[in-house]
Amino acid sequence: MTNSDSSNELTNVTYEVADRVATITLNRPDRGNVYNWDMAEETIKALDLADEDDDVRAVIVTGAGKYFCVGMDIDAFGDLGETDRAQIGGYTRDGGGMVALRILSLYKPVIMAINGSAAGIGMTMTLGADVRIATEDGKFAFPFTRRTIVPEACSSWILPRIVGITQALEWISTGRTFRAAEGKEGGLFSYVVPTDQVLPKAREIAKEIVDNTSPVSVAASRQMLWRALGFSSPWDGHRQESEGVQRLVGGPDGLEGAQAFKEKRQPVFTSTIKNDYPFAWDRWPEAPNDLS
Amino acid sequence: MTNSDSSNELTNVTYEVADRVATITLNRPDRGNVYNWDMAEETIKALDLADEDDDVRAVIVTGAGKYFCVGMDIDAFGDLGETDRAQIGGYTRDGGGMVALRILSLYKPVIMAINGSAAGIGMTMTLGADVRIATEDGKFAFPFTRRTIVPEACSSWILPRIVGITQALEWISTGRTFRAAEGKEGGLFSYVVPTDQVLPKAREIAKEIVDNTSPVSVAASRQMLWRALGFSSPWDGHRQESEGVQRLVGGPDGLEGAQAFKEKRQPVFTSTIKNDYPFAWDRWPEAPNDLS
Amino acid sequence: MTNSDSSNELTNVTYEVADRVATITLNRPDRGNVYNWDMAEETIKALDLADEDDDVRAVIVTGAGKYFCVGMDIDAFGDLGETDRAQIGGYTRDGGGMVALRILSLYKPVIMAINGSAAGIGMTMTLGADVRIATEDGKFAFPFTRRTIVPEACSSWILPRIVGITQALEWISTGRTFRAAEGKEGGLFSYVVPTDQVLPKAREIAKEIVDNTSPVSVAASRQMLWRALGFSSPWDGHRQESEGVQRLVGGPDGLEGAQAFKEKRQPVFTSTIKNDYPFAWDRWPEAPNDLS
Repeated sequence: MTNSDSSNELTNVTYEVADRVATITLNRPDRGNVYNWDMAEETIKALDLADEDDDVRAVIVTGAGKYFCVGMDIDAFGDLGETDRAQIGGYTRDGGGMVALRILSLYKPVIMAINGSAAGIGMTMTLGADVRIATEDGKFAFPFTRRTIVPEACSSWILPRIVGITQALEWISTGRTFRAAEGKEGGLFSYVVPTDQVLPKAREIAKEIVDNTSPVSVAASRQMLWRALGFSSPWDGHRQESEGVQRLVGGPDGLEGAQAFKEKRQPVFTSTIKNDYPFAWDRWPEAPNDLS
Repeated sequence: MTNSDSSNELTNVTYEVADRVATITLNRPDRGNVYNWDMAEETIKALDLADEDDDVRAVIVTGAGKYFCVGMDIDAFGDLGETDRAQIGGYTRDGGGMVALRILSLYKPVIMAINGSAAGIGMTMTLGADVRIATEDGKFAFPFTRRTIVPEACSSWILPRIVGITQALEWISTGRTFRAAEGKEGGLFSYVVPTDQVLPKAREIAKEIVDNTSPVSVAASRQMLWRALGFSSPWDGHRQESEGVQRLVGGPDGLEGAQAFKEKRQPVFTSTIKNDYPFAWDRWPEAPNDLS
Repeated sequence: MTNSDSSNELTNVTYEVADRVATITLNRPDRGNVYNWDMAEETIKALDLADEDDDVRAVIVTGAGKYFCVGMDIDAFGDLGETDRAQIGGYTRDGGGMVALRILSLYKPVIMAINGSAAGIGMTMTLGADVRIATEDGKFAFPFTRRTIVPEACSSWILPRIVGITQALEWISTGRTFRAAEGKEGGLFSYVVPTDQVLPKAREIAKEIVDNTSPVSVAASRQMLWRALGFSSPWDGHRQESEGVQRLVGGPDGLEGAQAFKEKRQPVFTSTIKNDYPFAWDRWPEAPNDLS
């Protein structure tokens, strides 16, 4: 288990790497891991560490203690309008959204190990992940309309694309609490397991990715799926896929995946994101800081 | 229970307000509440009444008698091409779509209490709602291909965004009848309950909204989710959310929601849509009447 | 049972018409119906035959032998970069995507009878269909990240619009194998049945369409739903629907569907795609062969 130097600067989250998997742990267990600006910024820093380390092949996010994240720190609500943070057109940029956008742009797949109850930003910060595993004992809510705010962390865009527009509207218009089974049925949670199985299940899925996939291939596939949500025509999907297939077949891992499958052995991939990621369209372009 | 003066002009639907919830009842029970131009126009008038009344916090739509709405009045099919109604580029504007667009633009959440069978416009007029509750005894269909027409009431746009493109295609390409359980499994119905529980369940959800949420916050959240379905990038979601959070925190209800949560008491919201809705982007812009 | 002359030229697939339903069978049973360029081109030819024959009202696609389609022919992976095939901006156009785009543009509904295991292109070629029926004994995978490529056949665009973005990401980021029940729960499969019931179920659904629907109405509805996935506003859905309803009511089948329903008899539709399809916007425009 290693800690990078930079990870020592983190206090609201911890960052550990083991078995080629980075684990980011929300770390204010005495307060239910409530979110504030510092936790948002440290989460982004930890995600940057994971993305820059070619040895990291998957990222797990979980919470310290009994809860995953019970939401925004109520004491920090007054800071929501402060203007010395990043802005968009005169409005303070939503900090949860900055975390969400960083997850969407990540080269590595993200597995949310939701070890306890989660609400507000505790829910919305998970929406950009590839997998969400929830404890069967948790309580969950998108309670924005009960706190006089609106859905954040890009959830107005992402949530309907996960669970459909009606399920998203119902959870958000009522702001009510729901249990894990309802989240699973509604398509929000990929898996619901006992609390002590949440992290082992996350590690099992991470290991499946580490052992079997090409890092460049995973990064490209992940980015293609998010990008294609914004395409108005399947032809645009066809274009990026045609480019993707040909570039990757011509890359250093080339035909290794196909060859290994044919020979019924584990593939040995040597490509790295740093050296071999072959796309110029790799990540969401950052939008300008205005509203026009 | 109150009736506004305007509501007395309605004959194809009834409009009642009780406990801060408006109930619109399709009211041609002798004909299974079949739809025609008059019912469409009166439904829109009733939705206007609900939206203009700040005392109304949620809207329930249900049907009088045994059925919810068995579809378009067959005798009125010939009117579909009449040209003295609103037009788009020389085509008579689909009346069901005008109802759907009014529901999408509503400030108040809409709960469909589908008390009996529903088909055609009887199904598609419900798609813009936040919640659909169906009787377990109902039969349901999108039978357009069996009547030589096409999906209407904006259902070609909304339905795949609720249940996914394949489920939408299957129901529409076959035009077949299905039962409530299949609708629930497919993501169409939020709840399936016995007939005599449909309206009580709708009122329970409405009460949950009335008792706990900020009206301005619900209106903004609802509009943001619909708008974001048309955004091609999560950054656009981030922008509207950043603006939304800051404007609402600066509004009259300000930090009341957060404060009430902290103090473990019911919040007291005083904002009204009429005075305090803080957005210029509040509703879908009405498209021009041409096809270009 | 008839075979058109053109169908005799097919060797990698077979094409048969019976009871107004075309059945396309992937026909390399000794190799698990592995896909290559020739099979892609022949599948497109067979789909063309189905679309041009007004007597064909629905299309079933299935596999010969034990498997549906186990994926791309590993021996043909090297051909993925060959440049004498159709190109987009200097990249060889993905052949699976050409099949997918042909299915999306088809006038006739498509029913996938997935009689055995399917992986890679064996899964993605089914995504544009109206119905997917899978054998309960099959194994399924989107294993692109294990073969060093990316999702193809327009699946980066279609799959998240069927099952939601998270389910799509999980299947693709891990590349893992899953069983039919998981595919059903995730919204990928419309029906899961025993192997010997796959084709009968497909024929039952095809017969439901043939017996009850107007061919022009089915074609228009199908195209409208796919198009609307690319619309950024429900108003655009309203426009195409308003045009669609009025044009079809004014067409040769006119009010026959409504009249038959009223008289409680089977409708007799005489419209044909060739003569009576009334739309100029009928199919996805083919994108130019560049990436700009």
